[in-house]
Amino acid sequence: MNQNLGQNHFIFDGCDTVELAGQYGTPLYVVSEAMIKNKCREIKEDFLSKYNNTRAVYASKAFLNLEMCKLITCEGLGLDVVSGGELYTALKAGVPMENIIFHGNNKSQDELKMAVSNDVGRIVVDNGYELDRLNQITEEHNKTADILFRITPGIDADTHKFISTGQVDSKFGIPMHNNMLYDYVVKSQNMKRINLRGFHFHVGSQLLNNDAHLNALEVLLLLIRGLKDKLGFVTSEVNLGGGFGICYTEEDEQRNIRYFTDPMMGKIFDYCQRYVLSIPQVIIEPGRWIVGEAGITLYSVGAMKEIPGVRTYVSVDGGMPDNPRPSLYNAKYKAVIANKYDKKRDKTVTVAGKCCESGDILIEDLKVPAVESGDILAVMSTGAYNDSMSSNYNKLPKPAVVMVNKGESRVIVRRETYDDLIARDI
Amino acid sequence: MNQNLGQNHFIFDGCDTVELAGQYGTPLYVVSEAMIKNKCREIKEDFLSKYNNTRAVYASKAFLNLEMCKLITCEGLGLDVVSGGELYTALKAGVPMENIIFHGNNKSQDELKMAVSNDVGRIVVDNGYELDRLNQITEEHNKTADILFRITPGIDADTHKFISTGQVDSKFGIPMHNNMLYDYVVKSQNMKRINLRGFHFHVGSQLLNNDAHLNALEVLLLLIRGLKDKLGFVTSEVNLGGGFGICYTEEDEQRNIRYFTDPMMGKIFDYCQRYVLSIPQVIIEPGRWIVGEAGITLYSVGAMKEIPGVRTYVSVDGGMPDNPRPSLYNAKYKAVIANKYDKKRDKTVTVAGKCCESGDILIEDLKVPAVESGDILAVMSTGAYNDSMSSNYNKLPKPAVVMVNKGESRVIVRRETYDDLIARDI
Repeated sequence: MNQNLGQNHFIFDGCDTVELAGQYGTPLYVVSEAMIKNKCREIKEDFLSKYNNTRAVYASKAFLNLEMCKLITCEGLGLDVVSGGELYTALKAGVPMENIIFHGNNKSQDELKMAVSNDVGRIVVDNGYELDRLNQITEEHNKTADILFRITPGIDADTHKFISTGQVDSKFGIPMHNNMLYDYVVKSQNMKRINLRGFHFHVGSQLLNNDAHLNALEVLLLLIRGLKDKLGFVTSEVNLGGGFGICYTEEDEQRNIRYFTDPMMGKIFDYCQRYVLSIPQVIIEPGRWIVGEAGITLYSVGAMKEIPGVRTYVSVDGGMPDNPRPSLYNAKYKAVIANKYDKKRDKTVTVAGKCCESGDILIEDLKVPAVESGDILAVMSTGAYNDSMSSNYNKLPKPAVVMVNKGESRVIVRRETYDDLIARDI
Repeated sequence: MNQNLGQNHFIFDGCDTVELAGQYGTPLYVVSEAMIKNKCREIKEDFLSKYNNTRAVYASKAFLNLEMCKLITCEGLGLDVVSGGELYTALKAGVPMENIIFHGNNKSQDELKMAVSNDVGRIVVDNGYELDRLNQITEEHNKTADILFRITPGIDADTHKFISTGQVDSKFGIPMHNNMLYDYVVKSQNMKRINLRGFHFHVGSQLLNNDAHLNALEVLLLLIRGLKDKLGFVTSEVNLGGGFGICYTEEDEQRNIRYFTDPMMGKIFDYCQRYVLSIPQVIIEPGRWIVGEAGITLYSVGAMKEIPGVRTYVSVDGGMPDNPRPSLYNAKYKAVIANKYDKKRDKTVTVAGKCCESGDILIEDLKVPAVESGDILAVMSTGAYNDSMSSNYNKLPKPAVVMVNKGESRVIVRRETYDDLIARDI
């Protein structure tokens, strides 16, 4: 790498991003192996090693491919999957099936069969309908299933409505009011091939405050105690979900894993001690927190348009199809001109995607140096929910994914071709 | 087809939708050839045949595959494309290149080369940067390019912000204030291989009122007159874009093509007569209007959950990945239980998708008969911007597309497989 060039260029995990753009083309997803490993190691050090009988599983819907499965497994984490497609990916990557936790509000018959026949570690049962189906499938397959129930703790999390999941009016989980959950516990205990281990909640996504987790945990602990008192049921596992937030812009405060896990663990210990409950295994499911900041997207700048007195639009060669979050959630991102990294940022522009849709605006009012066509724009914190939510809108091929590690780079998902786009057409 | 069954089942273009779901699986996109043809024929009868020197091109970003290219071409319409991928699809389907109009706010160098070297009928130049690039490419390829300029008429259309495109602050087109456009006209006339034919506007999408079109047209006509007076430039083509709305729910008023085209044509005739201008060729670009109501999506009902006093959730086997419009635009849809079509609709449910995301709600407060797992839900008016915007979020495979016609059905896009989902992984 040219050291002189490097001084003006944005370097990401030891790689010159301008060189990456030249070598692999744009738009390009770049993920840092070192940064993912650092996050996994923070989890190991500050949660798994610190507390006995704990587990961490990666919420794979954030970003999933064969290589990611292998990396996560090597780092000692399990995998949370939410569909047959995610489970299939894990299977093909050789992820040990006992490391898998299977979620979802509407798992199909085929997906449940796939999970049962492959001895998936845990199935998180979302509702009574699913409990009955699963029971039937275990009978048919002569298998047992270790399950958790997903509860709806009735907590409103401080996040976008779309990614807030713990409130009473939710498509997810079993509500806590009335005795529905007690009934399901009793019912599951009468099912010979169903082994109820405990409970799961997920309060929302991209949370930078631990209130919702702690409030939900309170509801969960009360439930555990009630079940022991009333039914003699001992909860051996609690799965506290994910939703741990990351930094997208300067306004987001950096949260280490301890910020979320330490108060929760403290609460569990205190409560269990006070009410003489055995301490259950505690599981967390970070997705975005592991991979979000470890990914960036590189774009080439194309057309530029100054509307006098209004705004300067800088158009890039991707947009809404590779990152729908700005149009879906009004999500904010920070970005830099990778080939002018050391230049003074004294201009304000709006970054537009190339999609034929007004909503395809990636970043409003971004501070940049003077931009020219051919410049490389690096958008930060795109590691989660970009590739995994990407579409082919406007028949734009999906970008390649390049993994970088201390100056080395390799393609882990190849770029889509025009032929791929019509491969299913008959 | 079982006539008795048919009486209780929702029939779409002569096909029993419950049988289609059984035969091809769910989720399933179903598009009606007859309904698409009817729309094309309405355009022919009420616009193309009624007025001399007119053209209609289908805005292919609404729904595009090889079969659709062929159908549209057979019906005598051209194709509007917005990317190399859409152009490639048209090329592979054998669409005559003179029938193609190429749009986009940020066409890449490669896309412009592809368009020029294939002698695409019209390139709609969005900005000055693109004009220079295109000029250079025509020189290099020893080709000429027939172009239109996209203007920003400065009209706020009465629609969702994301799909409103004609206002001053837009990433699309050349603003009308100051003399930018005049400068570009002069500049293009000095380019030997660039042949400026006229102008294009697109005011927004899903418009059920013709005000925005008529207001934009007024701006365009003033421009045409000004250019003739000041530069002696004769405009030979005006492209009035699309954006013609359809019925999603009972609240949307049905609009025939005449509602939009007749007043515009009247205005053009009057104006040209009054100011002694030659009448230009008039082009329209309907996309959604042709295919939107011609498509439905079939889902299977899975889990159901009644939250007492709150809501009943009915979950289906697709959702946000096959139809992102509810989460993106808060779009409303109507739907029926296809196997209980004649039953009284006396229940109210919320239709949830299977995606692990709270925003994955397809329809709130839908009136239905008593629903059971295994029922088939048919969501109406999903022909446009469903398949074309679909993603693999949660690693859900994209549905198949089945074309129906007077009781016959055939797959035109095969269902994605799990193997397809990891085919690019290395």
